[in-house]
Amino acid sequence: MYTHRVNYYETDKMGIVHHSNYIRFMEEARVQFFKDINFDYFELEKQGIFSPVVALNNCKYRKPTHFGDDILIDIKIKQYNGIRLVVQYKMFTNDTLVFEGESEHCFISQDGKLIKLDENNFGALHNKLTELVEK
Amino acid sequence: MYTHRVNYYETDKMGIVHHSNYIRFMEEARVQFFKDINFDYFELEKQGIFSPVVALNNCKYRKPTHFGDDILIDIKIKQYNGIRLVVQYKMFTNDTLVFEGESEHCFISQDGKLIKLDENNFGALHNKLTELVEK
Amino acid sequence: MYTHRVNYYETDKMGIVHHSNYIRFMEEARVQFFKDINFDYFELEKQGIFSPVVALNNCKYRKPTHFGDDILIDIKIKQYNGIRLVVQYKMFTNDTLVFEGESEHCFISQDGKLIKLDENNFGALHNKLTELVEK
Amino acid sequence: MYTHRVNYYETDKMGIVHHSNYIRFMEEARVQFFKDINFDYFELEKQGIFSPVVALNNCKYRKPTHFGDDILIDIKIKQYNGIRLVVQYKMFTNDTLVFEGESEHCFISQDGKLIKLDENNFGALHNKLTELVEK
Repeated sequence: MYTHRVNYYETDKMGIVHHSNYIRFMEEARVQFFKDINFDYFELEKQGIFSPVVALNNCKYRKPTHFGDDILIDIKIKQYNGIRLVVQYKMFTNDTLVFEGESEHCFISQDGKLIKLDENNFGALHNKLTELVEK
Repeated sequence: MYTHRVNYYETDKMGIVHHSNYIRFMEEARVQFFKDINFDYFELEKQGIFSPVVALNNCKYRKPTHFGDDILIDIKIKQYNGIRLVVQYKMFTNDTLVFEGESEHCFISQDGKLIKLDENNFGALHNKLTELVEK
Repeated sequence: MYTHRVNYYETDKMGIVHHSNYIRFMEEARVQFFKDINFDYFELEKQGIFSPVVALNNCKYRKPTHFGDDILIDIKIKQYNGIRLVVQYKMFTNDTLVFEGESEHCFISQDGKLIKLDENNFGALHNKLTELVEK
Repeated sequence: MYTHRVNYYETDKMGIVHHSNYIRFMEEARVQFFKDINFDYFELEKQGIFSPVVALNNCKYRKPTHFGDDILIDIKIKQYNGIRLVVQYKMFTNDTLVFEGESEHCFISQDGKLIKLDENNFGALHNKLTELVEK
């Protein structure tokens, strides 16, 4: 599970982590998740495949977090069909759910064209994501 | 309508505005919207009322935006009942919809207790928000 | 003179603007300064010239600034010799100096090679910067 | 030594880490450095002592860094006299110096008054910082 330690610069004048930063923590955890299953974003982008965020949904701020807190981030692949990927996040501090949300992604080439992944096109990544979808 | 001009530091290695920044643009536009209806966030917070984001929903990234682009942001009050406020955003660059989304808010005191707004409690703000809810 | 209005997300738990953001305000003002003298960063980069920051010097935080403050930013070209550019910034809120600093830049091509500007190489920009150096 | 792994959202359209982020990495490393010598910023601030940045000096961007890079950050206490603290940073990626710089700090109370540290005022911190000054 990925851990983000809250930085001073991520707090705001309410004394808590600014809500926009959780969207960045989602990305940090997603990058690490892909690395853990042997797909490095940096390498994927060098191979010409990008996976931009096309939607954020059901992002719920359950509890505030503070400077120095460790936020543990749990990730699940919720949906995947070769064209569209939905990733689900749950964040915990001291065993308390502090945030949950979902990001939706497509796949594009360097010049912005949509890519459909299948067994013959980025097959290893396709098979892994298919396998990881929550039953 | 609020305008955000895209800064260099808001772009990422894809050459477009990083998705997390739209959440910040939503806040910028919301602050200006409240100012335009004569409720200054800074003053409200000095009076002891805070309005944190409790959820983000239906955030859809329609088109990428780029360094130097002007993003025009249109705001509507979608729901309001004294306890819960839903604000809707549509962002346009060159008359093209680039992003839409919603933020949900509650109202709290400095010490984090929920506040219910009504005619006798922050009455002017309550009446204005009630009036502004989209029919 | 460029004006930056302080955003909520630029504050930190001390209740003031986080010091790292002034470096971003310097960039905002610099981009606008170049635009005002008819050199658009976006266009310059499309023409293949980039001007990264190679140093920050004498950055002094004189007074804290707060959410909603207008920060007026005054820019001067301190040094320029075709290879190296030093830009000087003074920032004011309510006529009080709140920050001053300097950024040093070089010029590079898309592939990272150093460019020397002169009358025959980006001549219009070269002449303008030469003219603007503070006597 | 503190390590910062570069996040996607820290890159800009040049494909490298945006220069403003190094100022944030300095803060991350400084917070960890203080924690390592048993002074937790969070606890210090609860005890009523804050240490804002009052200046940045000699910040030199030696080499660009990229998404996924590990940046190792070495810290030294350069000057300290109870009123003023100068911290020096050197950042390395793959054993190459990528950035160096200095931050200068004062000490203030919650209400913004200057604090002078000595043997009787935050004595443990005072003694530790005095001991750590580079000869």
